[in-house]
Amino acid sequence: MRIVVPFAASTPKTRLQPVLSPAERSTFAKAMLGDVLTALTDAGYDPTVLATTPLDLEAEAYSLESGVLEAVSVAVDERPLTEAVNARLGASASDPVAVVMADLALATPDALERLFATDADVAITPGRGSGTNALVVRHPDVRVDYHGTSYLDHCENAQDVGASLEMVDSFRLATDIDEPADLVEVLVHGEDDARAPAALREFGFELAETDGRVTVTRRESPASK
Amino acid sequence: MRIVVPFAASTPKTRLQPVLSPAERSTFAKAMLGDVLTALTDAGYDPTVLATTPLDLEAEAYSLESGVLEAVSVAVDERPLTEAVNARLGASASDPVAVVMADLALATPDALERLFATDADVAITPGRGSGTNALVVRHPDVRVDYHGTSYLDHCENAQDVGASLEMVDSFRLATDIDEPADLVEVLVHGEDDARAPAALREFGFELAETDGRVTVTRRESPASK
Repeated sequence: MRIVVPFAASTPKTRLQPVLSPAERSTFAKAMLGDVLTALTDAGYDPTVLATTPLDLEAEAYSLESGVLEAVSVAVDERPLTEAVNARLGASASDPVAVVMADLALATPDALERLFATDADVAITPGRGSGTNALVVRHPDVRVDYHGTSYLDHCENAQDVGASLEMVDSFRLATDIDEPADLVEVLVHGEDDARAPAALREFGFELAETDGRVTVTRRESPASK
Repeated sequence: MRIVVPFAASTPKTRLQPVLSPAERSTFAKAMLGDVLTALTDAGYDPTVLATTPLDLEAEAYSLESGVLEAVSVAVDERPLTEAVNARLGASASDPVAVVMADLALATPDALERLFATDADVAITPGRGSGTNALVVRHPDVRVDYHGTSYLDHCENAQDVGASLEMVDSFRLATDIDEPADLVEVLVHGEDDARAPAALREFGFELAETDGRVTVTRRESPASK
């Protein structure tokens, strides 16, 4: 299976702006990418990072182990996400393509394997708000469109081209890390040796309880740096 | 397996106050309970609703089919959630107890079956923010505490009493419907014949797209009623 991990290398994770500086957002995005690539290679795959600008994955910021580095390649495509991904589709049952977002910080080999193991023409793990966090395509006529209600749109597109469809039910893959409220999930469910929770702890984040609800607090604000 | 579905019958779903009137919140909570009970009975179980006040499940608001009504019983317990649930634990491998929240509007028989099918002493599907949306207990010394970071607390409690633990990875069971932003999930993923999405559509809610993000809008506000 060909696996593509789109990654917006410049100004990533803008919706985390209220709690992270630009440099921290970049560090955190690279940490999440490192965790996703590690989960994919641990599951036995050789993913390709589809980056908007050239990347040096050997740089310390990604902290990738040598076995992971050997398995991962980088392709640069400056086009918007939807166009860049569609250029890599044209999949078939014998040559499936998976697209896995780089901010799925809770991804584990088991969760990914459940997504990859279906025999549906299109298998999708939705994100919240009808997003498409990861999908596998085994049908030549399926294309993606990541704008708006992409999950519903992808379901409709599959139906239109006569492709069978399966929704893969995973909390880990449904949890993309976009907003400050999402950070709590990284601290609660991130694997012990993962990069993303380590980055957040390094920034000073910890779990906090307010009015019975759990959120994160930070020991110092980005503005004070 | 004994299955308990806690239900706060008076003033339910207070965090939906910004978008639903008290009467609507009550209607919506009953619709979600009806969907959860239907999913459980479709999966072959006979759940008990653990209600804070007496309930008439035959009333139209729940719109339960006769087969579901026959399978479901009601127990009234006015104590707070944690106490009321703990009074029903003392589970064992041969007499397991499952606790499934009444606001898991996306629950399906398949998702529930994945939770029930493990052989762990404690199987949990976390909710967002370290909540505990559903769990199965097969160990006599395990107790619950639904305050704060209950998922992490339940993991720690399992370890303390020497109980084996499994996190069951389900987006459907991780999605409890508490806040206005959660309503979009009901409209996107609710089953076609489910009560909760029908109630929201009846109230005038529909999917909307703003700045590339998907949310819900309403044709008329609760205040105008």
